Amino acid sequence: MSGPVLTLSGGVGGAKLVLGLSKILDGDDLVVACNTGDDFDHFGLRICPDIDSVLYALSGLSDQQRGWGRRDETWTFMSAIQDLKGPDWFNLGDGDLATHVLRNEFLRQGQSLNAVTADLATRLGITVNVCPMTDDPVATVVQTPAGDLAFQHYFVREQCQPCVTGFRFDGIARARPNGRVIAALRSEPKAIIIAPSNPYVSVDPLLHIPGMLDAIKGANAPIVAVSPIVGGQAIKGPAAKMMAELGNDVSVLGIAQHYRDILDGLVIDLQDAHLAAEIEAMGMRVHVAQTLMTDLETRVALAQATLDFASEIAQ
Amino acid sequence: MSGPVLTLSGGVGGAKLVLGLSKILDGDDLVVACNTGDDFDHFGLRICPDIDSVLYALSGLSDQQRGWGRRDETWTFMSAIQDLKGPDWFNLGDGDLATHVLRNEFLRQGQSLNAVTADLATRLGITVNVCPMTDDPVATVVQTPAGDLAFQHYFVREQCQPCVTGFRFDGIARARPNGRVIAALRSEPKAIIIAPSNPYVSVDPLLHIPGMLDAIKGANAPIVAVSPIVGGQAIKGPAAKMMAELGNDVSVLGIAQHYRDILDGLVIDLQDAHLAAEIEAMGMRVHVAQTLMTDLETRVALAQATLDFASEIAQ
Repeated sequence: MSGPVLTLSGGVGGAKLVLGLSKILDGDDLVVACNTGDDFDHFGLRICPDIDSVLYALSGLSDQQRGWGRRDETWTFMSAIQDLKGPDWFNLGDGDLATHVLRNEFLRQGQSLNAVTADLATRLGITVNVCPMTDDPVATVVQTPAGDLAFQHYFVREQCQPCVTGFRFDGIARARPNGRVIAALRSEPKAIIIAPSNPYVSVDPLLHIPGMLDAIKGANAPIVAVSPIVGGQAIKGPAAKMMAELGNDVSVLGIAQHYRDILDGLVIDLQDAHLAAEIEAMGMRVHVAQTLMTDLETRVALAQATLDFASEIAQ
Repeated sequence: MSGPVLTLSGGVGGAKLVLGLSKILDGDDLVVACNTGDDFDHFGLRICPDIDSVLYALSGLSDQQRGWGRRDETWTFMSAIQDLKGPDWFNLGDGDLATHVLRNEFLRQGQSLNAVTADLATRLGITVNVCPMTDDPVATVVQTPAGDLAFQHYFVREQCQPCVTGFRFDGIARARPNGRVIAALRSEPKAIIIAPSNPYVSVDPLLHIPGMLDAIKGANAPIVAVSPIVGGQAIKGPAAKMMAELGNDVSVLGIAQHYRDILDGLVIDLQDAHLAAEIEAMGMRVHVAQTLMTDLETRVALAQATLDFASEIAQ
């Protein structure tokens, strides 16, 4: 097990753990596979929210207060879009736009999303490997009683209000997993970590890419998740609301059930310690830790605890 | 002569006169044909500097101090482009980007530049007609001893430093004049006004579109220019420098010589009044006026003086 640590990540929550991991693992020792099911085209520009959250976190550009996007952001573009009576339901910061415009230009020139992502990471001084889960288009669709919603329509335009009945990942049957991720899985990875991201819309697209789950299971590495649910609530985003609407247990138990076929271990928060035995009864190990990542120190601490837990499992 | 006033305009200088004209002529009584030879693609976005200068002037969005672009502009996008080590030689304001992104999206959807320009004008509350000179790609090339330069490379990247030996308008042989401009020329226009724009790179592309000059001459309307040269200097931009490098008279005489085959009249500044007789000897009439447009009042006054001058010629 001389290979890298592979982390599967969605956006903001996952990016926090990834930042912690990057302070411990450098260069090729950390490979981050990012969900691209949230990606969409807006104003003809390809927007990749989860990749960008990871890039901004790793380059120190992310905004800590707002919780998404870049720090020192301005919003003159959106104001001018309103002057022009253009569509203003999706907020694009002026600095954030630079990422989208540059990425779009490189994609237009024929580069793959994988190559563009690696290039942007290098330009931002990031040394660990940040990869899209696939170069092929995958679009998460949120199913509701009123009909299907494109993910960003659900998430941003409708502000997660509609009741969720299920999900669909359009294009996933034809999507090929990212080559750098598969290479990492074939090079005796030290651990596979599922970041504390939304299981349905951030991690499931990754796991559903044909070949990805088999490669993960076949890697002979400990597979460990950090629960995005703490004390029955999501730290951020609609994960808890979705779990309830889907009739699942809104707790770390629900997370354990969701991932029970693949996990060797689950990291849960101190306040969920009383549920540890019940989770272990599902056939996985449990590590109890402080999982609220309020600053860099807590991010690094959780990253280290997760790596140590994976090492223990591997022994 | 119940038709509109047609104005041929480049960027900033022309836009000032156009704003003055728009305070006198409303709706279909004013048609503005904008140079598109300066247009170029940057970051995969179509940038139309002259059209935008006219749109921003007419909608009250232009910046008075800087002399170009939008007021209340911010520059976070450019700062982020620098973070990303992207090309930063062409300054794009955050608000200005909204125009480019929205235009690009509409063009990408298959709309013509003419339709998109009319749409953007309507969105900004502009009631007069703003048209690109053509929907077809025309690219002004600046010829220098060191080789050819794309216009924006000469104008922005090289800051007009290279010596100019000539100009070329790539694509112009296949360019078709804008239909709204031709319709205006065929509807008994009251006047054709050449705005105080650079004769070589702002007005000549317009005049060189196949069919445009014949349509202008055949319109049976007074053709009047406002000199962009005052007291031997250009108000803004490289017009005077270009005139000198091309061996032309850097004065209103040089302007009169440049346009002598088409002009019925030339508006010159008070400080050039002593050259009026020499210009009239070239076969055109001269009107002396205050041509420095320092505020809205002077713009409207110059517009009115130019319209009155054209009326006199028509009688």
